[in-house]
Amino acid sequence: MDHLKPRAANSPPLTPLGYLERAATVYGGCTSIVYGNTTYTWADTHDRCLQIASSLSSCGIKRGQVVSVLAPNSPAAYELHFAVPMCGAILNNINTRLDPRTISILLCHGESKLVFVDHELSNLLLEALNLLPPTHPRPQVVLIEETDQSFRSNTDGIQSQVLSSQYLTTYEEMIKKGDPKFNWIRPESEWSPIVLNYTSGTTSSPKGVVHSHRGAFIMSMDALIDWSVPKQPVYLWTLPMFHANGWSFTWGMAAVGATNICLRKFDGPTVFDTIQAHNVTHMCGAPVVLNMLSNLPNPTPLSSPVHILTAGAPPPAAILLRTESLGFIVSHGYGLTETGGLIVSCAWKPKWNKFPASERAKLKARQGIRTLSASEVDVIDSETGKSVPKDGHTVGDIVLRGGFLMLGYLKDPEGTSKCMGDDGWFRTGDVGVMHLDGYLEIKDRSKDIIISGGENISSVEVESMIYSFPGVNEAAVVARPDEYWGETPCAFVSFKDEVKNPPSERDVIEYCRAKLPHYMVPKTVVFKKELPKTSTGKIQKFVLRDIAKALGPSKASRL
Amino acid sequence: MDHLKPRAANSPPLTPLGYLERAATVYGGCTSIVYGNTTYTWADTHDRCLQIASSLSSCGIKRGQVVSVLAPNSPAAYELHFAVPMCGAILNNINTRLDPRTISILLCHGESKLVFVDHELSNLLLEALNLLPPTHPRPQVVLIEETDQSFRSNTDGIQSQVLSSQYLTTYEEMIKKGDPKFNWIRPESEWSPIVLNYTSGTTSSPKGVVHSHRGAFIMSMDALIDWSVPKQPVYLWTLPMFHANGWSFTWGMAAVGATNICLRKFDGPTVFDTIQAHNVTHMCGAPVVLNMLSNLPNPTPLSSPVHILTAGAPPPAAILLRTESLGFIVSHGYGLTETGGLIVSCAWKPKWNKFPASERAKLKARQGIRTLSASEVDVIDSETGKSVPKDGHTVGDIVLRGGFLMLGYLKDPEGTSKCMGDDGWFRTGDVGVMHLDGYLEIKDRSKDIIISGGENISSVEVESMIYSFPGVNEAAVVARPDEYWGETPCAFVSFKDEVKNPPSERDVIEYCRAKLPHYMVPKTVVFKKELPKTSTGKIQKFVLRDIAKALGPSKASRL
Repeated sequence: MDHLKPRAANSPPLTPLGYLERAATVYGGCTSIVYGNTTYTWADTHDRCLQIASSLSSCGIKRGQVVSVLAPNSPAAYELHFAVPMCGAILNNINTRLDPRTISILLCHGESKLVFVDHELSNLLLEALNLLPPTHPRPQVVLIEETDQSFRSNTDGIQSQVLSSQYLTTYEEMIKKGDPKFNWIRPESEWSPIVLNYTSGTTSSPKGVVHSHRGAFIMSMDALIDWSVPKQPVYLWTLPMFHANGWSFTWGMAAVGATNICLRKFDGPTVFDTIQAHNVTHMCGAPVVLNMLSNLPNPTPLSSPVHILTAGAPPPAAILLRTESLGFIVSHGYGLTETGGLIVSCAWKPKWNKFPASERAKLKARQGIRTLSASEVDVIDSETGKSVPKDGHTVGDIVLRGGFLMLGYLKDPEGTSKCMGDDGWFRTGDVGVMHLDGYLEIKDRSKDIIISGGENISSVEVESMIYSFPGVNEAAVVARPDEYWGETPCAFVSFKDEVKNPPSERDVIEYCRAKLPHYMVPKTVVFKKELPKTSTGKIQKFVLRDIAKALGPSKASRL
Repeated sequence: MDHLKPRAANSPPLTPLGYLERAATVYGGCTSIVYGNTTYTWADTHDRCLQIASSLSSCGIKRGQVVSVLAPNSPAAYELHFAVPMCGAILNNINTRLDPRTISILLCHGESKLVFVDHELSNLLLEALNLLPPTHPRPQVVLIEETDQSFRSNTDGIQSQVLSSQYLTTYEEMIKKGDPKFNWIRPESEWSPIVLNYTSGTTSSPKGVVHSHRGAFIMSMDALIDWSVPKQPVYLWTLPMFHANGWSFTWGMAAVGATNICLRKFDGPTVFDTIQAHNVTHMCGAPVVLNMLSNLPNPTPLSSPVHILTAGAPPPAAILLRTESLGFIVSHGYGLTETGGLIVSCAWKPKWNKFPASERAKLKARQGIRTLSASEVDVIDSETGKSVPKDGHTVGDIVLRGGFLMLGYLKDPEGTSKCMGDDGWFRTGDVGVMHLDGYLEIKDRSKDIIISGGENISSVEVESMIYSFPGVNEAAVVARPDEYWGETPCAFVSFKDEVKNPPSERDVIEYCRAKLPHYMVPKTVVFKKELPKTSTGKIQKFVLRDIAKALGPSKASRL
């Protein structure tokens, strides 16, 4: 039986890069990217990616080297998901909302050899480069200039001025000089790295997540099936491509020959206008995007349904219902930078459609069940390592295994081994419960649990309740030290602009008291105009925790 | 960087078996299988599969042993695609149309330890077992009894009579005794075998194709995306499950929580009735199924569209058009037992919808372009190994590589190495052309090429022309020795029943002469009531070649 084994013909490395050539063959004449007044076809995108890959090779970029990208959701940002790995290099998307110091740390840590930077972010990058240690080799920089006339006027001057000194060349020059017949460099192994993504987690400092070609292939296929993405959807890029590579839909959209609508930035009205103008069918975003859509003062309901996939935090019921009432079909899932995309999703059951709206929203706010390529997902007792009972209330650690999982953290063997140990589980750092029906629900990031008088309080649960309070825009609950209980919930709340007479702290507390077990009711409520957020739009609980701590311990009182 | 590697958490073996547990969680209360008056839910199917797997383990079936199945498209046949590999064994579906001698050869070659046999095929199996060499250990036999009342009456007697002597037990008994909480046996490696499929190729003797868990996972995911299968389709089993495991849709339908409509046998009217009764949305079949549907005398057009996926031979234009006119949406692809499913498909371009019907049919009859998981598919010159020009007429060998490809042929290292050589290509044995637009078209099985006066004649091309002759039911063209030209085309033709005055040999030849290059026109036309077919419904060209040879060389004549 020795001959029944992997051979060259049955084990070519799995990689998503081959989707592009196929898209050019099948969808060559169809639109691949819309950006302002610019459109490209899949034939164009294929050629442009090969041209960039060929130019990168000519610049001396070698297999396994890191190439960084600092750009909004532009055509270049999309193309570089193919072009960079097609020259054998590792793509490193950098979060555009980071500060220069953090960016310089990432460039240094990843040993980036070349950075593509969008013209609007060039000052940010140049500042970051100036902060590199003097001994650190300075990466080459390629300027992504503005090519679309509708965005052009205000940046033209800057480009020509700085180009001579700081930049190797421009993106479009690189394309012009590149060879569209370039024989792209296939990975040596399917385990070869394809991307390096720095996490902007809410609980820890940035870590360099390295994914393999195999992982990206599996995740991108899985995501298409899990969301039932048809051929040739019109996909609106509201999710940043730098965020887990647009949860792998950067590659996935080539697989189905989508039209990618790229927006440099957006607000609620822009999203609605773009949906109507281009007949958008699909989009993704954190709950903050749903919030933005549902809070528009006079939104026109959509003329045809738009599928929106959300993740990153459980969407509050009120926001879910408002978004759906506008004509969005909301799906909810769960993933981490380490999984490269969503690996748990709230697969909807037809019988749930008969339930009342509030019940439906509650069901949909659960993270759900593993996707097809997730071998196993479980909630385990952190001490015994055994599955917690499927009772919907016993909290445990969320663990998983699957072919989409990262290779590990760059230059961090210890951190890698810590989360992917000998027991074969990846520890997500999140805690949750398993419901009787086998659906998973996240209760909190490990650090977000409030322990009050020995009882675990899920801050998410309290937040959900506060979100249902009329006029609330954002809510976050953290632990505040308490003289008697150890910790008690402290709520931070912002109201919508149209709320003229905001309620008092007492009003919010009494509202919660009527609906929650007493031990879960916030003892403190702090009103804010806006809550502090991470660069990916997650509320920064660690900042709020510091504020709560600075308030000093709340006074003893038995509830 | 040594720590960036496969670990237990990121490299659990890829396998399609996990789809079942997920289907039970998401679609537990929904119908999984309909069979006569019997229906099962996904929760039932999950339990039944685990019960069978547990009983197989109790019977002593061990990891890596072969378990065979001889059954029509029944619930048992479906369930065994999960149950057999879930006990660690290798599933060996046997073609139900084979003769006892061939079946005994396969059981012997595969060293099958246990055979599940459908009650209607028990005599066939018992005959086959009697033909096993006396020294060969006799496999255990489990009788799949009839459980559905609508099929029951005529077999009841046989079962109780023979059960005592020949059978270990019955299928339902095995389920009763099995444990639905059985901890199923995961593959040791994703390269571990999951199935053994004997090919019924038209050009060679049967070979035992072994596929891995990894291959089945990749193929089943790929097939769902390529055909854009939505969640919870209603899938009609017209394709035999024993045929490349229903092209991997056995597993795939669990992935999307489909309703599987199982038919023991079918004809045109049954298919139409079943489609209406169950609101069928999807089905597969060789062109012979399309032929059956399109030849019904008074078919009622479908009330809602049914997606039908065909492969195995290029569907003749006339049949394609007739099938589509009834409301079927026909997709066409290409695969082999060795690829485990379709790995080339004729991805449809919206712009083609504007073309006239005959042009559309011609485009759709092309096999198409590689699917997402097919790394590469090419047509190469058999001598130089170089790609043939994309000109639509230079014939070459069809070669491919991809993660779905078999591990190899059981006990045949030489055959395995011959088709999967050092150049990294799998040689399909088929020949074709590459069109300018990158779409592949098969011109023939290698042996089906007719070489006349030094010109290669594609028998498929000549057959296509004959199919357009009014009243033709089936057509096959093979080489007949020729005194002057070496070989000339010899056509075998059958007419539809309603044709009362069949045309003459001369009529057919003149019809072809008006439309084909003269060297391609058949010099001989033989009329048959029916053409000989393989057990999977392919026309047996080797039988026809023998007949043509026996006719003796056609006389010299210059065309």
